[in-house]
Amino acid sequence: MYGLIGRIKAQPGQRDALAAILLEGTAIMPGCFSYVVARDPADADALWVTEVWDSQESHRASLSLPAVQAAIAKGRPLIAGFDSRTETEPLGGVGLAR
Amino acid sequence: MYGLIGRIKAQPGQRDALAAILLEGTAIMPGCFSYVVARDPADADALWVTEVWDSQESHRASLSLPAVQAAIAKGRPLIAGFDSRTETEPLGGVGLAR
Repeated sequence: MYGLIGRIKAQPGQRDALAAILLEGTAIMPGCFSYVVARDPADADALWVTEVWDSQESHRASLSLPAVQAAIAKGRPLIAGFDSRTETEPLGGVGLAR
Repeated sequence: MYGLIGRIKAQPGQRDALAAILLEGTAIMPGCFSYVVARDPADADALWVTEVWDSQESHRASLSLPAVQAAIAKGRPLIAGFDSRTETEPLGGVGLAR
């Protein structure tokens, strides 16, 4: 499996709007076992996104999905930057929608 | 919801054994929507654990579950340290076993 842990900084005051856009566009993505958007309680502008995919190819393919493309276009103006991006190799766990 | 993103350093050569212990003890935990154990491809001794719970109380209560207690006891000797621990506030997503 292929995983990602990323921290996104929204434009001031836009975090919740950005989160809604991210969640909207990611409801149906082939090969996606987990995609969670979370606020960072310690930073009013930061979101954490944690992802698990059956493969890196599935993740890459998802970026071309119309809904994801629309979310990226809609969300980009609300993004101030990407703080961190860590690739992982998930081994298993609870809540993997396989 | 309550979330955690943590990075654990295993003793050298013990990462996969530690991952197995973590996964073994966490199969059934009330209030747990997501619990994923993943290798860090960039560090042979590091694991990432990402969690989503219905509440912080459920997470706290899980630490007293016999299976979790057993995993903690079994896993502790294989742990070299906890690199990072971030609390989050999950908003939603895919693969939340609600």
